[in-house]
Amino acid sequence: MTSSPERIYLDNAATSWPKPEAVYQAVDRYQRSCGASSGRGVYSHAIESQQLVDQCRRSLATLLGASDPARVIFTSSGTDALNLAIQGILAPGDHVIASDADHNSVLRPLRMLEGRGLALSIIPLADGRIDLEKLERSVRPSTKLVCVNHASNVTGLVQPLSEIAAICQRTGALLLVDAAQSLGHLPIDVAALGCDLLASPGHKGLWGPLGTGLLYVGDRVSELLRPLRYGGTGSRSVEETMPTELPDRLEAGNLNLPGIAGLGAGVREVLQVGVAAIAKQEQQLRAELIAGLSSIAGVQLYGAHPGAAAVGVVSLNVEGIDPLELASLLDANFGMQVRAGLHCAPRMHLSLGTAPTGTVRLSVSHFTTSSQVASAVEAIRSIAEAMAG
Amino acid sequence: MTSSPERIYLDNAATSWPKPEAVYQAVDRYQRSCGASSGRGVYSHAIESQQLVDQCRRSLATLLGASDPARVIFTSSGTDALNLAIQGILAPGDHVIASDADHNSVLRPLRMLEGRGLALSIIPLADGRIDLEKLERSVRPSTKLVCVNHASNVTGLVQPLSEIAAICQRTGALLLVDAAQSLGHLPIDVAALGCDLLASPGHKGLWGPLGTGLLYVGDRVSELLRPLRYGGTGSRSVEETMPTELPDRLEAGNLNLPGIAGLGAGVREVLQVGVAAIAKQEQQLRAELIAGLSSIAGVQLYGAHPGAAAVGVVSLNVEGIDPLELASLLDANFGMQVRAGLHCAPRMHLSLGTAPTGTVRLSVSHFTTSSQVASAVEAIRSIAEAMAG
Repeated sequence: MTSSPERIYLDNAATSWPKPEAVYQAVDRYQRSCGASSGRGVYSHAIESQQLVDQCRRSLATLLGASDPARVIFTSSGTDALNLAIQGILAPGDHVIASDADHNSVLRPLRMLEGRGLALSIIPLADGRIDLEKLERSVRPSTKLVCVNHASNVTGLVQPLSEIAAICQRTGALLLVDAAQSLGHLPIDVAALGCDLLASPGHKGLWGPLGTGLLYVGDRVSELLRPLRYGGTGSRSVEETMPTELPDRLEAGNLNLPGIAGLGAGVREVLQVGVAAIAKQEQQLRAELIAGLSSIAGVQLYGAHPGAAAVGVVSLNVEGIDPLELASLLDANFGMQVRAGLHCAPRMHLSLGTAPTGTVRLSVSHFTTSSQVASAVEAIRSIAEAMAG
Repeated sequence: MTSSPERIYLDNAATSWPKPEAVYQAVDRYQRSCGASSGRGVYSHAIESQQLVDQCRRSLATLLGASDPARVIFTSSGTDALNLAIQGILAPGDHVIASDADHNSVLRPLRMLEGRGLALSIIPLADGRIDLEKLERSVRPSTKLVCVNHASNVTGLVQPLSEIAAICQRTGALLLVDAAQSLGHLPIDVAALGCDLLASPGHKGLWGPLGTGLLYVGDRVSELLRPLRYGGTGSRSVEETMPTELPDRLEAGNLNLPGIAGLGAGVREVLQVGVAAIAKQEQQLRAELIAGLSSIAGVQLYGAHPGAAAVGVVSLNVEGIDPLELASLLDANFGMQVRAGLHCAPRMHLSLGTAPTGTVRLSVSHFTTSSQVASAVEAIRSIAEAMAG
């Protein structure tokens, strides 16, 4: 035990850290040298702000495989993007399908709308995955939307998105992908997939700052989606109703320019490294974590199926110790920063049998090293052995 | 004419620039050294993030005169705060009073709700000010809310807030103050005023970064206000409905930590300088602008009544030149950055007789100097003289 051990940050599923140096610099440079709002002024620095916004939007469109950058809407978080999608497309009488994998950022807006006449089916998971036959059987004539948690923020397990998208195409239901744990971690092509809505934070796998997020809006919904916020857009200001054009219709109010400057720098780095390379490396780190942790007596892993499609998120418990206490010990004694509890995904824990105390979650990023993973495994081993002894 | 003149930033009503050095440093320090999300982790850096949030909330409560910091809700912009207030409190059948001074961030959400059965009265202005008798006569038994644009983003004129608050108290209507141009510029005490809802961006008079905003929630509405966003709060995660406590109920999703770190630093500087001192200085700059501009033939000022309560915002036109063209010339030839057009306040321009092309707006901050004001006056004089010649 040392008094201040090296920081081993394994909470990248909450927000990634560190960010690339270019992200810090882009935020600071914008703040000090530009500082103007976008979309509203004709002077040079306002135009520079608008260029930062346009560049970031184009980079995101490239990452997503979206042909039109105007279909990428900036939001203040993944939750903001999910609420825009869910509250913007659903009406009383519609039926929606979600699953036990969903986060409270999907479940809570759906439960609110259920109170206003939405019909909601939440399908159980089989071994962490959505059962495709069960999903297809749940589709009704009134099914407006299928919500898919692409990669679980509890287990890291990835749902079979192409198959789910095919079911949506066959049945006419719209598809909303919660890509909070997958965008930037796994290759995603919204056009090839036929995805209608995809929501993501900008501060996890895209390496941007907290305070950023995005919603991709596909062809079938681009004219239907209602705004979550109404207000000034710097366009058609003479009208007291929102402009109809995207992205303006869905982006009332000043955008988060320092955040978008940083997000743009983050996404450019993601594109430069390449999502396939990031996926490969993070899956290697996951495999190292699972291999190391599996060998420790008293450690229970959840959803750590060998060979399953997954991102770099691993959940565990150590026999005899509460997850919150384990997380505190890991930080205090080993500088190892992990999340404990339900991770805002209560049904997932009912499904795993880990409610109400939840799990300890380790989540890596592209900037996590094998040596940090090895240290993390040893830290957990030492606590597990102490508990057993 | 020089090819790159010194930058004279007079668009502080859009977003203030520069920010204090402490704001830049707080953002960068958070990003590089902390980086964790708030409200969700038990490790040291997550606790540090939570402390940044708590400190900023307390500073805002101090600034506002709010006894309970939990009544200060973080939002992503002033528009986000106004939408939370307006969409969160109103229901079909309610009656609302707004005025021609209102910004599209108030008018557009109200127009949307009007389409869902809200009754809306928009009262005209008399010489830029709300007519108190007309306001009181407009109140009906069904009047739920009175929206007041505290200081105009077009003319800078300040509405008689105490008198309006007294009318609300007498009639039982709730009071929503749009403090976008007043918070940090003028002393405001929500408790003394009996204000129910006060919305403000964090990046104007509070010197924080773009991407921040706040809503103050008073006693009479604290249990009524519905969230705009539903999702994870890091609290009561086992429940698929939002927690009832403030601020959590209204703050779903990850907060903008770099923004809040910067906003906290900004508000601390505002408190240190003192709002009364800031108000005095900005009013002096306004007086210098008006005195200088009034002496120029061909310059028309709007709402520049001598001695009227006002913030540092001045609108004008120069005879014979479109506002957009004037703004472009001022930037290109004099490095003077101003806003042209309707400033997202279409009814204000109908009221002033400046629709549809609007005005050129000059807006100062605490960091604007008298010498910059003098340069700005000379720049406009030289263009006005060229137009006249």
